[in-house]
Amino acid sequence: MFECPVPESVSDRIQMAHGGGGRLMNDLIRSVFLEAFGSPSGSVQNDSAVLSSPAGRLAVTTDSFVVQPLEFPGGNIGSLAVHGTVNDLAMSGAEPLYLTAGFILEEGLPLDVLNRVVHSMAEAARLAGVRIVTGDTKVVERGKGDGIYINTAGVGAVPHDLEISPSSVRPGDSILLSGDLGRHGMTIMSLRAGLSFGEALCSDSAPLHESVAALIRAGIPVHCLRDVTRGGLTATLSEIAEASGLTVRLDEMSIPVRDDVRAACGLLGLDPLQVACEGRYLAILPGEYEDEALRLMRGCGVSSGACLVGRVEEFRTAPLLMKGRLGVERVLGMPSGMQLPRIC
Amino acid sequence: MFECPVPESVSDRIQMAHGGGGRLMNDLIRSVFLEAFGSPSGSVQNDSAVLSSPAGRLAVTTDSFVVQPLEFPGGNIGSLAVHGTVNDLAMSGAEPLYLTAGFILEEGLPLDVLNRVVHSMAEAARLAGVRIVTGDTKVVERGKGDGIYINTAGVGAVPHDLEISPSSVRPGDSILLSGDLGRHGMTIMSLRAGLSFGEALCSDSAPLHESVAALIRAGIPVHCLRDVTRGGLTATLSEIAEASGLTVRLDEMSIPVRDDVRAACGLLGLDPLQVACEGRYLAILPGEYEDEALRLMRGCGVSSGACLVGRVEEFRTAPLLMKGRLGVERVLGMPSGMQLPRIC
Repeated sequence: MFECPVPESVSDRIQMAHGGGGRLMNDLIRSVFLEAFGSPSGSVQNDSAVLSSPAGRLAVTTDSFVVQPLEFPGGNIGSLAVHGTVNDLAMSGAEPLYLTAGFILEEGLPLDVLNRVVHSMAEAARLAGVRIVTGDTKVVERGKGDGIYINTAGVGAVPHDLEISPSSVRPGDSILLSGDLGRHGMTIMSLRAGLSFGEALCSDSAPLHESVAALIRAGIPVHCLRDVTRGGLTATLSEIAEASGLTVRLDEMSIPVRDDVRAACGLLGLDPLQVACEGRYLAILPGEYEDEALRLMRGCGVSSGACLVGRVEEFRTAPLLMKGRLGVERVLGMPSGMQLPRIC
Repeated sequence: MFECPVPESVSDRIQMAHGGGGRLMNDLIRSVFLEAFGSPSGSVQNDSAVLSSPAGRLAVTTDSFVVQPLEFPGGNIGSLAVHGTVNDLAMSGAEPLYLTAGFILEEGLPLDVLNRVVHSMAEAARLAGVRIVTGDTKVVERGKGDGIYINTAGVGAVPHDLEISPSSVRPGDSILLSGDLGRHGMTIMSLRAGLSFGEALCSDSAPLHESVAALIRAGIPVHCLRDVTRGGLTATLSEIAEASGLTVRLDEMSIPVRDDVRAACGLLGLDPLQVACEGRYLAILPGEYEDEALRLMRGCGVSSGACLVGRVEEFRTAPLLMKGRLGVERVLGMPSGMQLPRIC
């Protein structure tokens, strides 16, 4: 059988040799990665970057990104990979300094997709004030990947002596949420389900460190911080409540969910409280600092919708309770099935 | 059509929900990762680890691992992921301190394979004296991965003021190689080609930082360090020679390659000088320190086969020249095709 091949330039796509350590890999590093991220020396980088060490403590984190589709309203896998790791550092109250970028590329990936993703990363890093200091590229055969997987690891400086952790949570603490829930997850799920909810549904992916820094700089003794990603508010607060041995009591009426997100959730049979965000966080802190913290959070664009969603109490009945719209209190459990894979 | 399903316990394999942020993901983190790597608090970890910051400069690096097959004589993707990143730090003359571990798992991966890999990582880290401080797990659908991909990023302390870089290389420098070439690459390629070369062919994967530290501690003014990985000796030295603007002149007779590696290369049509190692490095340093450096390198098990393989000269003819077995000098170019993908 004769098949007429579609004309296509091999040089416009990732080939196995782009990961082989030879000339093509060096060309890719120079023409795509160094072009976007820059390099101290202008040459193909050393195996590691040597950098100044911050005083005090370091925060170190890692996150891999496998989101499908690779590009979506409000960002792409590249900007997401910067925001996700910046936010993991921010959740220690750290100032993000350095990111590493590890790429696993699938043979056949169009180079223009890679270029768009890499430029989004560079731009997201610039806006967040963090440097992408070193990287790595591997190529896997067609069908052994899904276009692009990215790992970003991050190093930050910890400019405080707080122990920001579930174990620091105390009865009487207020639970503040930085904004409305579920936009990122529902943007991705709607794309995958082939649904369109108009222009409005757009990822909330954003860097949170400046909002957190405003709390730390003001001397607010933050007990726990957590970004609301996989598993949504329910998983995040279940983990914290279980780890602290206390009960978190939420008021459903106070939890902001946009109408379009709620509608998309309804259509797909999802609970908005279990849907991931990429630009929202929870701050748990002593009740007496609640007003000041809300004021500071609302002063930052990314957390302008900050609100009180619940309080911490001595343990009773279950780790996570929520008073519903009709005034009835119910137990929320950690999500157990597969709700939303590959949203980040 | 009726198909009789093969009985198989779903719970013995990775499911999509292991990456979903809910109960199953937490169970996996506790039963596999925290069990092997430990955790400061014993609980599901925070998003980032807060650690003491070393004095002086930091080295930061990242490497993703996509080796196929996942397990091979002399190691597996887990031990390789520790050695690879420890070695990238060592090539800055850094003392490795902290590693992060990002896993991309394919749906259907047997949990016992994951457990073996994770335990090899933990053991390799213990032996190298480095801590795995934080991690991340994502799951992709069957057919969108290849069992396990691992990213390790590393943070190390730089206990010296040397500028270890191709730009520090000078005419008159000696080029020392820490041992025989090609064992790792040919172990992997032989497995993939279905060839058996007996028990002897085994990966050289090993941590190199102690051998490097012996040079640094002795005050040897090392100019450049590079582990001989993808692209082999030819790519590694081509890069250094091109970046320095000088000529590297090798003596083929002095470059150690074991007979079984040479035989395997011959059978598969590969050049041993282009085959990757995972436990070999090049040290480029002033000629007057050559004897002392060789003595120090030979005093460490991983570099007991250290030898002089060439010298750096003012630029002439081409960046990389090699005097062959018959005394004829030839130009070596950066490898340009796809020789050995997915050996790391």
